Amino acid sequence: MADEWQRCMDHGVEVTQQAGKLIREALERDVAVMQKSSPVDLVTETDQRVEQLIITSIREKYPTHSFIGEESVAAGASSVLTDAPTWIIDPVDGTTNFVHRFPFVSVSVGFTVNKEIEFGIVYSCIEDKMYTARRGKGAFCNGVPIKVSGQQDTTQSLVLTETGFKKDPEHFKTMMGNMEAVLSIPVHGIRSPGSAAVNMCMVASGAADAYYHMGIHCWDMAGGAAILTEAGGVIMDTSGGPFDLMSRRLIVASSRNIADRVAMAITEFPCGRDDAES
Amino acid sequence: MADEWQRCMDHGVEVTQQAGKLIREALERDVAVMQKSSPVDLVTETDQRVEQLIITSIREKYPTHSFIGEESVAAGASSVLTDAPTWIIDPVDGTTNFVHRFPFVSVSVGFTVNKEIEFGIVYSCIEDKMYTARRGKGAFCNGVPIKVSGQQDTTQSLVLTETGFKKDPEHFKTMMGNMEAVLSIPVHGIRSPGSAAVNMCMVASGAADAYYHMGIHCWDMAGGAAILTEAGGVIMDTSGGPFDLMSRRLIVASSRNIADRVAMAITEFPCGRDDAES
Repeated sequence: MADEWQRCMDHGVEVTQQAGKLIREALERDVAVMQKSSPVDLVTETDQRVEQLIITSIREKYPTHSFIGEESVAAGASSVLTDAPTWIIDPVDGTTNFVHRFPFVSVSVGFTVNKEIEFGIVYSCIEDKMYTARRGKGAFCNGVPIKVSGQQDTTQSLVLTETGFKKDPEHFKTMMGNMEAVLSIPVHGIRSPGSAAVNMCMVASGAADAYYHMGIHCWDMAGGAAILTEAGGVIMDTSGGPFDLMSRRLIVASSRNIADRVAMAITEFPCGRDDAES
Repeated sequence: MADEWQRCMDHGVEVTQQAGKLIREALERDVAVMQKSSPVDLVTETDQRVEQLIITSIREKYPTHSFIGEESVAAGASSVLTDAPTWIIDPVDGTTNFVHRFPFVSVSVGFTVNKEIEFGIVYSCIEDKMYTARRGKGAFCNGVPIKVSGQQDTTQSLVLTETGFKKDPEHFKTMMGNMEAVLSIPVHGIRSPGSAAVNMCMVASGAADAYYHMGIHCWDMAGGAAILTEAGGVIMDTSGGPFDLMSRRLIVASSRNIADRVAMAITEFPCGRDDAES
């Protein structure tokens, strides 16, 4: 099957590149119309068009494969992971960035077989950085091998996370408290670029040493998980236990030491599962 | 004098470009040695070399001009602004980013005459974006005119700020409380890129709608202030009063509405003045 998955990946890279081009073109047009939508959850026309482009192209070539896509799930499709070859797609990761033209907007594609991630593709389309990784074959940015920083000392680390307004006051308080706890370790600093998939790739390429996030989705993580792992990084659940693609919780780091220290600093809040019965 | 200041600016752009090249070259070498220094205040060899390069080159051409440079002030030089033509220089804005190769690192140069900012130059040297603005002549990125988003509605805005560990618990608490207060307006989100000068240029070019910061220095703000103002942005003190280059406090925004709303949300903490008698 090895070669078959390689052909899938090659096709995935090609269609991801096309998707990124479509996003860049949309950014060149007026986005004023989109700024009128809901402040926190900005689902754009581009989001849907990009997901359609990717799914249509892949389905034509691989009609038996399954899909979990952010927009399809929003429209009522299932997000239960099966053993079937499955493409997990975030068409526009960093939708708020997209609306503001803030420079981190990506297309994220992960591919699982028997529930294991076989390859990942993240295209940061404004930066024009194509990150790719296949299981056991290393991680790359624009074809050049990448690896994590290797930093072991949390007090020397740069940490990524994302904040946002939460209606639930307990949830909001825990999120802010976690940021305070991580800063107090202390670390070199916290950065918030606004795209989960790009954040994972930044840790994978050594530009940051850790990234933690609760409330994230499987389509935000699937592509980046392959890249981070193949770049020599550590991926785990925020509890410190094994990474669970459907758990909506994530810590990635350049080393086990840093991942463990971040896990120790932060408090979990309930955020449900992507594969929960609805 | 108009033409004379234009010649100064042209020379400033040239030397800033050289400075950026020096930073990029340093990034290509091993930075492991720098990661061993103090976690929060990373003053690097490159910082000092870049400032020397800029000051030496300008002093040769303009021996009567004054300088306020981050590294010179750290070494004991005065940072009192006079009526003399004065170059205000941050050789490496985003030192922590530099150490981690996080992609926002800039050289910031502002030029004042009679305490008024005459022009500003910010070179985001990893992105290769050269921002320039001269009083009354508009703002540019790589020669292309830029302007602020024009957004008026704070609830539709993307806000920039920076956080870090503070030893003073009151200061730390206020900083985190301000972030919570701004998120609760609510806004679309908060991003933390890690370079004050780049943050100001992001608001100037419409990629974000506001940026607030307390504890910042005149060399972080002087270059960006010219660019932001010429791009049609609003710059003010965190109190809501007029901007004061030496006050270590800053709000910039795409509109007066947003600047006022952010000023209303945040609480000040004492951070001294750059021109205080030491």
